[in-house]
Amino acid sequence: MEYVLSERVKTLKPSAIREIFKYAADPEVISLSAGNPAPEAFPAKEIAEISAKIFSENPIAALQYSVTEGYSPLRQAVGSFMKEKYNIGSDDDELIITSGAQQVMDLVTKSTVNEGDTVICEAPSFIGSLNSFRSYNARLCGIPLESDGMDIECLEKALQTEKNVRFIYIIANFQNPSGVTTSIEKRRRIYELAKKYGVMILEDNPYGELRIKGEDVPSIKSFDTDGKVVYAGSFSKILAPGMRLGFVIAPKEIVQKMIVCKQGEDVHTNIWAQMVAHRFMTEYDFEGHLEMIRSVYRKKAQLCTELLDRYLVPNKISYQPIEGGLFIWCRLPEGADMTAFCKEAVKRKVCVVPGNAFLTDESEQSSCFRINFSTPTDEQLTKGIQILGTLAKEIL
Amino acid sequence: MEYVLSERVKTLKPSAIREIFKYAADPEVISLSAGNPAPEAFPAKEIAEISAKIFSENPIAALQYSVTEGYSPLRQAVGSFMKEKYNIGSDDDELIITSGAQQVMDLVTKSTVNEGDTVICEAPSFIGSLNSFRSYNARLCGIPLESDGMDIECLEKALQTEKNVRFIYIIANFQNPSGVTTSIEKRRRIYELAKKYGVMILEDNPYGELRIKGEDVPSIKSFDTDGKVVYAGSFSKILAPGMRLGFVIAPKEIVQKMIVCKQGEDVHTNIWAQMVAHRFMTEYDFEGHLEMIRSVYRKKAQLCTELLDRYLVPNKISYQPIEGGLFIWCRLPEGADMTAFCKEAVKRKVCVVPGNAFLTDESEQSSCFRINFSTPTDEQLTKGIQILGTLAKEIL
Repeated sequence: MEYVLSERVKTLKPSAIREIFKYAADPEVISLSAGNPAPEAFPAKEIAEISAKIFSENPIAALQYSVTEGYSPLRQAVGSFMKEKYNIGSDDDELIITSGAQQVMDLVTKSTVNEGDTVICEAPSFIGSLNSFRSYNARLCGIPLESDGMDIECLEKALQTEKNVRFIYIIANFQNPSGVTTSIEKRRRIYELAKKYGVMILEDNPYGELRIKGEDVPSIKSFDTDGKVVYAGSFSKILAPGMRLGFVIAPKEIVQKMIVCKQGEDVHTNIWAQMVAHRFMTEYDFEGHLEMIRSVYRKKAQLCTELLDRYLVPNKISYQPIEGGLFIWCRLPEGADMTAFCKEAVKRKVCVVPGNAFLTDESEQSSCFRINFSTPTDEQLTKGIQILGTLAKEIL
Repeated sequence: MEYVLSERVKTLKPSAIREIFKYAADPEVISLSAGNPAPEAFPAKEIAEISAKIFSENPIAALQYSVTEGYSPLRQAVGSFMKEKYNIGSDDDELIITSGAQQVMDLVTKSTVNEGDTVICEAPSFIGSLNSFRSYNARLCGIPLESDGMDIECLEKALQTEKNVRFIYIIANFQNPSGVTTSIEKRRRIYELAKKYGVMILEDNPYGELRIKGEDVPSIKSFDTDGKVVYAGSFSKILAPGMRLGFVIAPKEIVQKMIVCKQGEDVHTNIWAQMVAHRFMTEYDFEGHLEMIRSVYRKKAQLCTELLDRYLVPNKISYQPIEGGLFIWCRLPEGADMTAFCKEAVKRKVCVVPGNAFLTDESEQSSCFRINFSTPTDEQLTKGIQILGTLAKEIL
């Protein structure tokens, strides 16, 4: 039977990554394609403890309907944390809790983008966000990413020529998939351009706490004196992604509309998860936990780069050095067929994500692929990269 | 500062009910305006037990990313339950778990309604759903509700004259706010009309398990041989609303698009909640629990109608008899000023919801108000209705 579908979903399709996950489900396949946090980074014992306390002390509060804006003690805890640690959030801003940072992408687009309006993003960028923008029929305009952030000349040109640009989407820290951290100079330039051309910035920072070396770079939101930045935060990498907890800090006028949209989407976010996060942040050693996570990823990233240096670099594959996050972006030599490389890797039971999956137009060419080092065990990582090395030696 | 907002949210505002909730937050005010399940209906002890088991047996599974479609064992448990008990779901259908039934409203609209298309709904109807439709710029067309369901003549006329009708939204059991249950004859007529005019039906059934007397009426989805019905179910009234769990059973083609949209909205639903629901359905006496809930609401509804008969009916306020659900719809005599009545009630510290809040156009007149009997204690219910009775005697 033929069903009438809305224009906005007609061309919408599951992300290419999901297709790749089908291969990755084969237990014989080593998946370097996921983006899951390492299980050893979850504070499982603490969450179990808090959960037991909640149900013994006040179970009804964790089970009854709650308010759309989020659990008030958690909003306060996150607000203080972000203000004190990162100077994020002003009196003109409001903070609400969302069902993962993914919901921020959805709510911002719904609240500010008409069908056919333009969203500027980094190219490559995070597919989940791009699909969220696409689901409101936004036109995507990708700006090439350099090793220190977007190509500013291209960005300004796009702001001059694209019609009805509503916001610039940026993952400034340890970008997914490229691993790039935008320099402070470029952050300031992007902010100035947003002001000059009257557009918003959607600053998505899921990996900000996962810095494994170097110094934190101030977020764009931290110098947002003009109310131009919507800041999206996530608990997925610092607590647990299955809980679906994120937050947004943005000008009140926009957040008020996001609240009305959220009410129509899921009424409010799972309240048990919000209560757990609040108690974990305020009754446990939250900073110590973040340090533990960083040390897990520091080790994994170090192993991964050692393996890349040993097996891929000598075989013509280069990679973008990283200071944090979960991903490393690898580049094949000019003229090599990236798609063929990834397909052959799957045949040899190693799964990576082909770079074109992260472009605004998946049919464009890319010579890159993405490796994730947080999900595989050390053994899987080692074996997987060895196999990629052998493959590179044979066909590149 | 002036922000650029999308056309779809410009006129969107928080529901009138939320404004009323502000008064209801005053501890001195008796709220008959909520829609919360009774706390004594929550299986709090069992949820605590299951939660402890999950965290002792396999915490990582409850904390890691999961699939958008939902936790597979829960999908199977819900599918079997709905098929065996209600004959809902065919081989052409697919079932996915959502973040409350509210998310079904959002995803169906996103997947099938273009801006400016029409959604037909009962008048009055559930505000949360209407706001979800509005948030995609759907045109709402309300069909007057009679004591046995929509006015069928009006419905057919609307189907003939309204442009681009995409679906008919119906709460067939114990409708919110009216308490009306649509008769089997009207259910069949509505289904035939949907086929005749080539539109879908969105059958929302949050209260189906809350029948306190009479016989179940087959759902429209149970005789959906032509793939015309999207069925929305909820755990909010039978387990706990704070967990935000719902599901949809609908033709695969539509569900596939809903999955892609859900991926862009919240990736997946809180996995702990899904695991708890699965174990509660399969390891505990689920039917016994539903019977317990019905007995809670049977008692509360009985008390409420006794109070209405005693204090309101003699003072010119009539009400719609109910067979289940959480609400009773009260009607003022012709010519009475409903808004003034509700405002004066608030001054006397009793909160009910004015009927116009449930209309497609809130500025229309209504002579009704909604009472909820699930949230207040017996004492609050008694005192609240006594006060309304005194008020009715004085001003009607």
